Amino acid sequence: MDRSGPATRVVVVGGDAAGMSAASVAKRRAGDAVDVVVFERGHLTSYAMCGLPYFVAGVVPDADALVARTPEQHRANGIDVRTGHEVRAIDLGTREVEVVALDDGAVRRERYDRLVIATGAAPVRPPFPGIDARGVSGIHSIPDALAIDALLRDRDARRAVVVGGGYIGLEMIEAFLARGLEVTLVEKLAQPMATLDADMAQRVTDALVALGVDLRLGVGVEGFEAGGDGWVTAVDTEAGPVPADVVVLGLGVKPRVDLARAAGMTIGPSGAIATDDHMLTSAPGVYAAGDCVESRHRVTGRPVTIALGTHANQQGRVVGENVVGGGATFPGVLGTAVTKVCGTEIARTGLSEREAADAGIETVAETTEGRTRAGYYPGVAPAAVKVVAARATGRMLGAQIVGGDGAAKRIDALAVGVWNEMTADAFSQVDLGYAPPFATPIDVSLLAARRARPPIR
Amino acid sequence: MDRSGPATRVVVVGGDAAGMSAASVAKRRAGDAVDVVVFERGHLTSYAMCGLPYFVAGVVPDADALVARTPEQHRANGIDVRTGHEVRAIDLGTREVEVVALDDGAVRRERYDRLVIATGAAPVRPPFPGIDARGVSGIHSIPDALAIDALLRDRDARRAVVVGGGYIGLEMIEAFLARGLEVTLVEKLAQPMATLDADMAQRVTDALVALGVDLRLGVGVEGFEAGGDGWVTAVDTEAGPVPADVVVLGLGVKPRVDLARAAGMTIGPSGAIATDDHMLTSAPGVYAAGDCVESRHRVTGRPVTIALGTHANQQGRVVGENVVGGGATFPGVLGTAVTKVCGTEIARTGLSEREAADAGIETVAETTEGRTRAGYYPGVAPAAVKVVAARATGRMLGAQIVGGDGAAKRIDALAVGVWNEMTADAFSQVDLGYAPPFATPIDVSLLAARRARPPIR
Repeated sequence: MDRSGPATRVVVVGGDAAGMSAASVAKRRAGDAVDVVVFERGHLTSYAMCGLPYFVAGVVPDADALVARTPEQHRANGIDVRTGHEVRAIDLGTREVEVVALDDGAVRRERYDRLVIATGAAPVRPPFPGIDARGVSGIHSIPDALAIDALLRDRDARRAVVVGGGYIGLEMIEAFLARGLEVTLVEKLAQPMATLDADMAQRVTDALVALGVDLRLGVGVEGFEAGGDGWVTAVDTEAGPVPADVVVLGLGVKPRVDLARAAGMTIGPSGAIATDDHMLTSAPGVYAAGDCVESRHRVTGRPVTIALGTHANQQGRVVGENVVGGGATFPGVLGTAVTKVCGTEIARTGLSEREAADAGIETVAETTEGRTRAGYYPGVAPAAVKVVAARATGRMLGAQIVGGDGAAKRIDALAVGVWNEMTADAFSQVDLGYAPPFATPIDVSLLAARRARPPIR
Repeated sequence: MDRSGPATRVVVVGGDAAGMSAASVAKRRAGDAVDVVVFERGHLTSYAMCGLPYFVAGVVPDADALVARTPEQHRANGIDVRTGHEVRAIDLGTREVEVVALDDGAVRRERYDRLVIATGAAPVRPPFPGIDARGVSGIHSIPDALAIDALLRDRDARRAVVVGGGYIGLEMIEAFLARGLEVTLVEKLAQPMATLDADMAQRVTDALVALGVDLRLGVGVEGFEAGGDGWVTAVDTEAGPVPADVVVLGLGVKPRVDLARAAGMTIGPSGAIATDDHMLTSAPGVYAAGDCVESRHRVTGRPVTIALGTHANQQGRVVGENVVGGGATFPGVLGTAVTKVCGTEIARTGLSEREAADAGIETVAETTEGRTRAGYYPGVAPAAVKVVAARATGRMLGAQIVGGDGAAKRIDALAVGVWNEMTADAFSQVDLGYAPPFATPIDVSLLAARRARPPIR
């Protein structure tokens, strides 16, 4: 718990989901008793990064819809949001931040009683030759999405290359397919979805092949070629060039910790800002939340850096409570995530078989083929559920799902089971809901847990 | 645990889901070491009673599809299924059952080492005047469904009356609407879905009104009128007659316990066969499973009779293990259930606010209006989630959901939370999956749990 006295001024560095969540909760709790100031480099707050691929796909017609709350709306709620302002340094001794107004370069020092670091994460952008070619970009902001959309509309792009087969990569594959492009996936690993085990990832691979995606798995990117006009023409890979009119990089993100590190705050072993379970950093009065912090993995107990909007939102709320005197705690993460690529849904929680092995845990792991609905009900789809359990104790460590419509959100019940340290055996008997449009009488997740019970010795 | 020596002959009374599940598991575990004989009065086994409304609706074109496994298929698996055979008595002393072959009336005595009672439940059919009119029926068997389907096809039925607004009632409303009929619901209670609290049931009422269903709530049935040809013409109610060409009774079911009671087995306070947690009845060597048994409610600890296929299947599996020497236990129930009526999904688990009050538990209960997907994602639908928590401890006791496409199966994660005795506060921070097509960044079930935290005193 923070012992540095009552806060009258809370300063938030970064207007992303975590930062704005912290600001909103603090303001709601403390009202006029506290000033909440947010410094955000860009011109938007609280936008839905996860929604960007769906704007490119055309299913979300208006990018404005992705902004959950504008700076003006936050201001109407009493939060002093200053966009176009970058915090360049933190003075822990005087409790001040040094802020640059990006429009005129003016530098000011601003006092805080409590500071919230929500600097997020930066897209990984390796120094490949040609990476600055036009038509090569990440998709991490609304301007990114608008630029890709404009490119598709204006330049008759036909061939898209997605580099990196993670969540954002798969979602961009769906978006480009929806826009009628030919799509190639270039992925350095031998599988898409590195957070799945190889056997479950194979199901995703099969789905991508069925969608007509040209897969280049186990193939590293070496650079990008551009024409005389500066626009990209090809991606150079270890296996030769791949023609491209548009390239999206989905190579993951890296926590932005420079500001915190320069101020002397502890950076954890996973490379993100270390906090206690109140989200308090090593510096008095300074909290952190979102993609810039590391979290405790509830299964291994180890610090991990997993960039997910769910964690960022929950952490932001905890910080918002605590900067105004609350005692909220963040309970750790399982890395539960869902996505889909066209008709194939994908989900995971906890440890994969491989992650468990890396953590030195012997496991039982079984994949069960089931169905999303009663076999006779229209729209029934396959659902493969893999459950990973500890061989010694039977404890359920994690689960993965690949299936059709309705398969993925089954991960939530499994996640609550993992969260509560249930054995696979115990989970296999929980009382879940059944009706023909929703499940089979014994849900596939229960069947999967039953099959992942360790053998009796 | 059963101490009555190794079984070589397992006799199962009743070929429903529970009975056939027990038979199948026993045969799979013990193989040739055990004879498994099933006596079933009817001519079908393992049929999906829950699927009948969808056959009437026309979405399941072939009633045969509702039979999960035919008697022939069970026989191919080594189970001696004898359809058209009714067990009339049990002799606990000699370990024999008295069986009547319904075709020729022949009576035989059959030995058992272990007996499984899976007599299920009988539809409630009050002695209303005129209840035997043609066109008035329950929907508990494939012949029931075929008869209703034939009636709709052959008799130009235009006006359907559903008596009873529970699961089956709602599903039959959907079926009749799908077949183009005008539908009236007559329900004695002031609300449909007695397993929901009144406020959540009101949302179902609103949905039914929007579907054009003529609602007669708080109105009891007094009888049925028939024309000279014996076909129903109207339902007489406390509020006057309602014209009807077809009537379905959805008045619930009552455990079939006569056989067990006559043999001297203990019937529990809820009116169903009492068992221990191995599903062993009060009689040595006699197990019971399915709608004929009572179960321990995991929240109240009290015995309850809740007829759900999920419980029947799980109990059948436990019995199947135990009749061949296993030590499986049935962990109790939450009464988790889902259904839908057209576009409105409905789910519940654990205790409602009213049930908690009946059990003497003071509660905090809040209903939270959320959404099934990101607000900007196509197909987003409202989802109202009510969480009921114990005021003294914050423990989550139950939850209810009414919403659009994708809302209902959220009940599963809540059910696993209730199962593990989580507080609403703790549940509000679990790590669930998020992506725009599947949820909001903090799922509505988490928001609902957060709002159901007891006030700090």
